[in-house]
Amino acid sequence: MLKMMLPELPDYYTDDLIKNALKEDINYIDVTTDLLIQAGSRGEARIIAKEDGVLAGIGIASRVFRLLDSTAELTHMNDGQSFKKGDKIAEIKASAAAILKAERTALNFLQHMSGIATYTQHCVEAVSGTGVQITDTRKTLPGLRVLQKYAVLCGGGCNHRFNLTSAAMIKDNHADFFGGSVSTAIKTLRERVGHMVVIEAEVRDFEQLREAIDAGADVIMLDNMNTDMMREAVKITAARAKLEASGNITLQNIRETAETGIDIISLGALSHSVKALDLSLQLRTCLHKQTHC
Amino acid sequence: MLKMMLPELPDYYTDDLIKNALKEDINYIDVTTDLLIQAGSRGEARIIAKEDGVLAGIGIASRVFRLLDSTAELTHMNDGQSFKKGDKIAEIKASAAAILKAERTALNFLQHMSGIATYTQHCVEAVSGTGVQITDTRKTLPGLRVLQKYAVLCGGGCNHRFNLTSAAMIKDNHADFFGGSVSTAIKTLRERVGHMVVIEAEVRDFEQLREAIDAGADVIMLDNMNTDMMREAVKITAARAKLEASGNITLQNIRETAETGIDIISLGALSHSVKALDLSLQLRTCLHKQTHC
Amino acid sequence: MLKMMLPELPDYYTDDLIKNALKEDINYIDVTTDLLIQAGSRGEARIIAKEDGVLAGIGIASRVFRLLDSTAELTHMNDGQSFKKGDKIAEIKASAAAILKAERTALNFLQHMSGIATYTQHCVEAVSGTGVQITDTRKTLPGLRVLQKYAVLCGGGCNHRFNLTSAAMIKDNHADFFGGSVSTAIKTLRERVGHMVVIEAEVRDFEQLREAIDAGADVIMLDNMNTDMMREAVKITAARAKLEASGNITLQNIRETAETGIDIISLGALSHSVKALDLSLQLRTCLHKQTHC
Amino acid sequence: MLKMMLPELPDYYTDDLIKNALKEDINYIDVTTDLLIQAGSRGEARIIAKEDGVLAGIGIASRVFRLLDSTAELTHMNDGQSFKKGDKIAEIKASAAAILKAERTALNFLQHMSGIATYTQHCVEAVSGTGVQITDTRKTLPGLRVLQKYAVLCGGGCNHRFNLTSAAMIKDNHADFFGGSVSTAIKTLRERVGHMVVIEAEVRDFEQLREAIDAGADVIMLDNMNTDMMREAVKITAARAKLEASGNITLQNIRETAETGIDIISLGALSHSVKALDLSLQLRTCLHKQTHC
Amino acid sequence: MLKMMLPELPDYYTDDLIKNALKEDINYIDVTTDLLIQAGSRGEARIIAKEDGVLAGIGIASRVFRLLDSTAELTHMNDGQSFKKGDKIAEIKASAAAILKAERTALNFLQHMSGIATYTQHCVEAVSGTGVQITDTRKTLPGLRVLQKYAVLCGGGCNHRFNLTSAAMIKDNHADFFGGSVSTAIKTLRERVGHMVVIEAEVRDFEQLREAIDAGADVIMLDNMNTDMMREAVKITAARAKLEASGNITLQNIRETAETGIDIISLGALSHSVKALDLSLQLRTCLHKQTHC
Amino acid sequence: MLKMMLPELPDYYTDDLIKNALKEDINYIDVTTDLLIQAGSRGEARIIAKEDGVLAGIGIASRVFRLLDSTAELTHMNDGQSFKKGDKIAEIKASAAAILKAERTALNFLQHMSGIATYTQHCVEAVSGTGVQITDTRKTLPGLRVLQKYAVLCGGGCNHRFNLTSAAMIKDNHADFFGGSVSTAIKTLRERVGHMVVIEAEVRDFEQLREAIDAGADVIMLDNMNTDMMREAVKITAARAKLEASGNITLQNIRETAETGIDIISLGALSHSVKALDLSLQLRTCLHKQTHC
Repeated sequence: MLKMMLPELPDYYTDDLIKNALKEDINYIDVTTDLLIQAGSRGEARIIAKEDGVLAGIGIASRVFRLLDSTAELTHMNDGQSFKKGDKIAEIKASAAAILKAERTALNFLQHMSGIATYTQHCVEAVSGTGVQITDTRKTLPGLRVLQKYAVLCGGGCNHRFNLTSAAMIKDNHADFFGGSVSTAIKTLRERVGHMVVIEAEVRDFEQLREAIDAGADVIMLDNMNTDMMREAVKITAARAKLEASGNITLQNIRETAETGIDIISLGALSHSVKALDLSLQLRTCLHKQTHC
Repeated sequence: MLKMMLPELPDYYTDDLIKNALKEDINYIDVTTDLLIQAGSRGEARIIAKEDGVLAGIGIASRVFRLLDSTAELTHMNDGQSFKKGDKIAEIKASAAAILKAERTALNFLQHMSGIATYTQHCVEAVSGTGVQITDTRKTLPGLRVLQKYAVLCGGGCNHRFNLTSAAMIKDNHADFFGGSVSTAIKTLRERVGHMVVIEAEVRDFEQLREAIDAGADVIMLDNMNTDMMREAVKITAARAKLEASGNITLQNIRETAETGIDIISLGALSHSVKALDLSLQLRTCLHKQTHC
Repeated sequence: MLKMMLPELPDYYTDDLIKNALKEDINYIDVTTDLLIQAGSRGEARIIAKEDGVLAGIGIASRVFRLLDSTAELTHMNDGQSFKKGDKIAEIKASAAAILKAERTALNFLQHMSGIATYTQHCVEAVSGTGVQITDTRKTLPGLRVLQKYAVLCGGGCNHRFNLTSAAMIKDNHADFFGGSVSTAIKTLRERVGHMVVIEAEVRDFEQLREAIDAGADVIMLDNMNTDMMREAVKITAARAKLEASGNITLQNIRETAETGIDIISLGALSHSVKALDLSLQLRTCLHKQTHC
Repeated sequence: MLKMMLPELPDYYTDDLIKNALKEDINYIDVTTDLLIQAGSRGEARIIAKEDGVLAGIGIASRVFRLLDSTAELTHMNDGQSFKKGDKIAEIKASAAAILKAERTALNFLQHMSGIATYTQHCVEAVSGTGVQITDTRKTLPGLRVLQKYAVLCGGGCNHRFNLTSAAMIKDNHADFFGGSVSTAIKTLRERVGHMVVIEAEVRDFEQLREAIDAGADVIMLDNMNTDMMREAVKITAARAKLEASGNITLQNIRETAETGIDIISLGALSHSVKALDLSLQLRTCLHKQTHC
Repeated sequence: MLKMMLPELPDYYTDDLIKNALKEDINYIDVTTDLLIQAGSRGEARIIAKEDGVLAGIGIASRVFRLLDSTAELTHMNDGQSFKKGDKIAEIKASAAAILKAERTALNFLQHMSGIATYTQHCVEAVSGTGVQITDTRKTLPGLRVLQKYAVLCGGGCNHRFNLTSAAMIKDNHADFFGGSVSTAIKTLRERVGHMVVIEAEVRDFEQLREAIDAGADVIMLDNMNTDMMREAVKITAARAKLEASGNITLQNIRETAETGIDIISLGALSHSVKALDLSLQLRTCLHKQTHC
Repeated sequence: MLKMMLPELPDYYTDDLIKNALKEDINYIDVTTDLLIQAGSRGEARIIAKEDGVLAGIGIASRVFRLLDSTAELTHMNDGQSFKKGDKIAEIKASAAAILKAERTALNFLQHMSGIATYTQHCVEAVSGTGVQITDTRKTLPGLRVLQKYAVLCGGGCNHRFNLTSAAMIKDNHADFFGGSVSTAIKTLRERVGHMVVIEAEVRDFEQLREAIDAGADVIMLDNMNTDMMREAVKITAARAKLEASGNITLQNIRETAETGIDIISLGALSHSVKALDLSLQLRTCLHKQTHC
């Protein structure tokens, strides 16, 4: 049951990232491949899963191969699909040189994004049935935010605000510098900001929580509360705002957190501490040396 | 005792990465900060370590603040320095709005790079006294290779080849497509490639190892050999080539690997599965509202 | 009485736009200025308003002069300030060649942005006292969205959603392709979208309006309703959602529209049909030929 | 009767502008379309004129759709063609999601450029039979000069100098800073500048006019002269230079200006104060859900 | 006697070229300098001429050093100045590492541009007294047109048209495809093109020459005519158009060509076959290890 | 006998260079072609050699035509092939306008790169049988390094280090600033640098040569040695390191240099002082005006 429909990341968007990665990895020429492999040789490659997971980034990985050989033919699983260790993720028929040169860049994208999708899905499954949404944060790796947020969708998660323009989040520091209470800050911001902006406020205790609710915050982030406090916060809020839990949440305690009744759990680790998913590219020569092996 | 001198990453190089990250995170405006905080307000911030580690990326993080406030003043530890939980990494005096807007981007760089440096140093310390070099791989995150390779230097490691242009690595697949033995591939490449290119070859067994040595490989990568095999390989090689171990090496078995007598251990995990180092930015208003608090 | 606080558009963001504009206008050299004017000549220029208005873009215009002469000295009014015909907007002391070369590019930015701010302010004043917010749309000129949205803020308006990522708007076509009612579309989107996204729905009649309210739309756009219908819509809605009026609204009918009780008026003309504000740059040579005249 | 042949704006040139506009408007994903519309849905759209006009930018608008769906099929009128209110400008068959996402960006280009072409044509028609050329100026919107100048061609106008490199224009300020008369400035510039550069000089009175003619200006701009003065200037000049009228010329007085015998009328308003042409995109679902509806 | 005033190439324009060159040459780090030289070391360098010449590009070369060390201090000769073998062109005080890393890139710019300026000056001197202008062509190296055309100015030459937009040149092929005579092509183009565009036509014989003059060409290029024919062409033309000689002109025959009475000699070799001027950078350590040696 | 296999320069890499060159040369429109030539006209062109040479850059030249007309059909010789004066290098069928507009840019690439390949081949042939490798240097033209190094391969040469990251070269200045002997510098660098980096050292005399050999330099550059000294250096070295000769080597003395027994000759002139190869594009109209003539 996949609730989330997946957007397409169009070529016009991702091509700059891919070309940049190719220039970074290949730079000028591949001194090994370009000087050893005959130009006409064709090859066939398979990307095999070496552990269970959820796929993310296959469109980008495919594009890497096609940018190096426009005649490359690929069949592959789709982003968001689950797979088991040993499953064939993709099959590529292309010039041998293109496969050899594209391999590392394609896998660098695919392993990182699938690592995110897989961890996200573990979190989503851990809270299944509670109605809690799993979301990312702005703790993304520089230059990779779009790919990381997309990978979170592939794993069944949701995206938190995309950037500082797209939604508001009032933290302690904002209130301090503003020179007033959380409550005044929320009300002031509501007057000044456009009507298409959600306002979230961070609160440390129940007094601030009540203030934030009364001031009309759309979402309230519970800062460093334990699960007992969260349960109390849920009662106090009584659905007048959405409640977000964040900080120190792991696969070990995520279910307990979700069962407190809060609405959203956001996890920096989805994007700032990604473990690459183990994938391997297996390559073989074409027996018959035909144009398309 | 700092063995490794650290290069400077000049502004002309990193500014594009930083500006891109700022556009990604701020985009147009910060609807929270820009609409709440008075333009004149000054603030003071400290970046505090929440765990032990090695610093990497402080120049970039500093530049983030200065790009948002050219009058920002920073004092900070240097890249490559070790710190303890609770240590003050940096102190920033700048406009309050600049600090609030720069915080996330600065930390995203700093936590990722320091995470790499810290893990690298753990590996370097684990093999200390063996003379083994710890190096990265080409398994880097797209767009971040320079920063990741620099962070490896900060942790006391060395860089493997920078890209496919800068050095040669003959893998099984190259030999297969080339249509000959590892030995012939090495000799052919040596004839064709420029004299400034190191040639490394990957071998699976002792027969290939002997072939590669005889063919004059500069470096030989032992593919999936256990430590007994490595010890034997060291004997066979008898210093006629450098030996590199790679694959399935963790902090648990790295010392044992190093003690086999091989020369280099390369670790994909240094860059493809980075755990962000935990850092926190603490902000306070300036008491006296002076231009420079 | 400053209603709106103005964000700063930082140099790192606008410099690309400015440099692009300078390359477009100057390209290689200014064959007139570069071949006629002595390199050492200094000049003094004033930017004078030739009609009443509100200033927007003075930071960008200043930056244009400074990019051509880093020693340029400027004093100027601030963005968001109103001025009268004949007022001095800015005074520039710089190299004569820099002023002559920067003039057109600086004015191209300033006249366009001030034209937007001025028209926005007319709209804001026209609805003053009604509590209605004046906002822009996505009908912006390609490449200039940030500058145009910022100029709307300078005129006292608010920004509608920044782009298709930052907020949702369900139009007829979305509902049609989705294959369901507006109501189902809203509910489905609410389930799928992150919690930081405002959902607006467009409705054509009161039945759809009721559906949208019941489905929980945050904002509802009244499509092509006359003011009688708007008044009825306000009653039906009873503050359960914000109401936005859009389409065929001009300075002539904006007050009447605002008085129906709707909350927001969005105007494509703020950005797609901008009349440049008339400004003129008056230049004079420095009498004493000193370095800084 | 179309005198002017239209150049093609090749994809390699306009793609950067288009991709930039798409990133500006879509950014990451379209939260409405991507989460509501099934990936396979096809749609059919028509762009309909809601007022009379002249087309400009259809190649760019088409490219927008194709960049979001490479299988998009378009039939359309050509740039430079006139149309009436209600006419069908273009028909698009493409994925429903692509149409919904491309619509705003495509129309933003098309309405702006067609607005320019249409206003240009009105001016051209107003002076028809007089032999006067209608031209643009350098008062273009930053980043859009190429598109704006091309749209002027679509409306039957001509382009003034493209930038400060491509031709010379000596204004009062140049003469002042040069420290000599208009006459000396012209002669000096002629000696210094390459032979492929036209020299235009701006004059305020008949004495300067005579000086400029004698000094060999190719073109002379009559600054703020009324039509009586223009007629006199035409007599004095006696075809020894081309005469350009500029400033305060509108559709109301353009015919009278043209009939004075001057050669060129340049209008800043063609590009700095553009009224978007009203176009609407009408979309319908494909009945039979075939790949190409 | 320097007739030509030199424009400034502003940093905003050349910085992209310089940064690109630095990334090309340094890429990530300088493995030699960064790992050997102490960060604090200061150095002093001189750029010495190893042959006579004319300087071009010193501003760009200076910028290279300053981009690698913002505290670099430079004194230098100016562009357009002549120097003798052994002369000191520039003196640089900066960090030793910056000098070592910047050297190659700075010299690559400076030697190429000074090579152009020097060869241009030889041509200019060879025709001195004839009134003939020496100009470049569009035969420039991709990406370097601005620098090459500027260097031609430094050598006392003039620039031919900057690109295909800035002026017209009707060649045989244009006339052929147009389907008419050179005469008709000129007249047709005059009607269609803006008034700020110079029209040049290429002619093969005296009949075409007469046609082109009568049709009103501003400039006429004599294609492959010998000097006898050129003299005849000068008589026929009788100053009704400017005459340009091009093709197979070298320092050996340039004087003879100039003395035929034609007006302009254009030389592809100024930019397509540049001999780098021999310059050398001499570096020495600072004796006293002070911050500024 | 072509020893060297040629890498492909993929479109994703060269397209930016080509588009930049097209924007530089065409900018906005081609006022001659676009206003004279009917849009539908087709043409046929041949690129003819006007002197003997070796081809380099035909893929890039082809791409230029295809970027201006995606239906262009080309047949051509391959990079690395030798040709005689009068040979047909390529044949192009495309729109007449595309051919006219692409001609100059395509030839600018092709003549420069083929000039390099041709001169390289002359050098390679001059040393044939000696086993000496001819290589380029870092004295490349800014922005063109990849194309220039590729052209050297086309001529049968090898590439020296690609940039300062890819290999180390210790010069006198490095040793001076390092504060030690060449020997110590080499040893220190070997400890600090990664194992994939070749170390070259420059020596002035036999003492330094012996030091460098003993310190384990991979390659040693003989600075300003005459051929007698080179012969002696070869004896001293006895194959313990590769020897590179550089400086003041021309086609006249290159054979003599090669016969001393050194291994590599590097030539700055291959890239810094390129003489364009003379090529000419001959164009003719299509007789039958068919879509593909």
